[in-house]
Amino acid sequence: MLTGHIYMATSLDGFVARNNHSLDWLMKQKIEGEDHGFDDFMDSVNGIIMGSGSFKNVLTLGPWPYKKPVIVMSRSLVDEDIPTELKGKVRLTQLSQQELMLSLEKEGWKRAYVDGGKLVQSFIRSGLIQDMTITSIPILIGDGLRLFGPVDNDIDLELTKSESFSSGLVQNHYKIL
Amino acid sequence: MLTGHIYMATSLDGFVARNNHSLDWLMKQKIEGEDHGFDDFMDSVNGIIMGSGSFKNVLTLGPWPYKKPVIVMSRSLVDEDIPTELKGKVRLTQLSQQELMLSLEKEGWKRAYVDGGKLVQSFIRSGLIQDMTITSIPILIGDGLRLFGPVDNDIDLELTKSESFSSGLVQNHYKIL
Repeated sequence: MLTGHIYMATSLDGFVARNNHSLDWLMKQKIEGEDHGFDDFMDSVNGIIMGSGSFKNVLTLGPWPYKKPVIVMSRSLVDEDIPTELKGKVRLTQLSQQELMLSLEKEGWKRAYVDGGKLVQSFIRSGLIQDMTITSIPILIGDGLRLFGPVDNDIDLELTKSESFSSGLVQNHYKIL
Repeated sequence: MLTGHIYMATSLDGFVARNNHSLDWLMKQKIEGEDHGFDDFMDSVNGIIMGSGSFKNVLTLGPWPYKKPVIVMSRSLVDEDIPTELKGKVRLTQLSQQELMLSLEKEGWKRAYVDGGKLVQSFIRSGLIQDMTITSIPILIGDGLRLFGPVDNDIDLELTKSESFSSGLVQNHYKIL
């Protein structure tokens, strides 16, 4: 079965970005020389599922950073919204989460990287996430876009690995039970 | 100078209690045999500062758990609200945070344990906290009372220690920069 996986960084107070999507608080961290495992994580997935908000935001951040296929879940974007140089790399879908997971599984996907705050929350609520890598950044920013949102019931987690770095980042790996 | 110190547990999504103050999600954790350093922390402080909400809540949790002096910051409680058996252990104050810290310093206090969600947030905003021990519990509860709140400016932290336990708890020590 195709499983969903999360790899996110949050401020200690739980934000993935400021309200204006800025990541300045994250970018200023002194992490030179540290390997937080992102490349290994990307190697482990067949592709990335994101929402239109994240997609539009990634477009503003410079050159397209992903080598793996990206699926953008959107009811508003149309093919003309995809820059020409990304044709073949980025696909739009209007499928539901469950339909999309089944469809990608039929294509041979085993593991999907689910990215973006809102999408992460709804995939968690739908039980489509198997595990999460959460990196806690040593800063309080006070306000912004949260990683986690409401849940219908408590979600118990199993800590499978915890690692701290000299930069002060703490990376925890959780399996969703 | 008297310094403020925080020792708190939060769900992975950042809550210290449910909205009804319940800690059932915390109490169910299987932590037998683990030492999370609370006794050492309590030994290191001269006493505890809490708000009236936390005070009332502690009263409902069974026998009074603290040996050290407790100062309750409240503009509404009066001496008659303090149970007889706690006279001499619990004091009320209407002083401001800064006035209280100066007053306790004159009494010889060096380190104060600042407890309770709202009080923690305002002491952090006032720059009265030197360090925080935050224990992350492997569960998402989705809603409740948050540890952290708005801040006037970003607050940078220095991770001084990180430790994980077989229960899945991760305890991080941060100095406020």
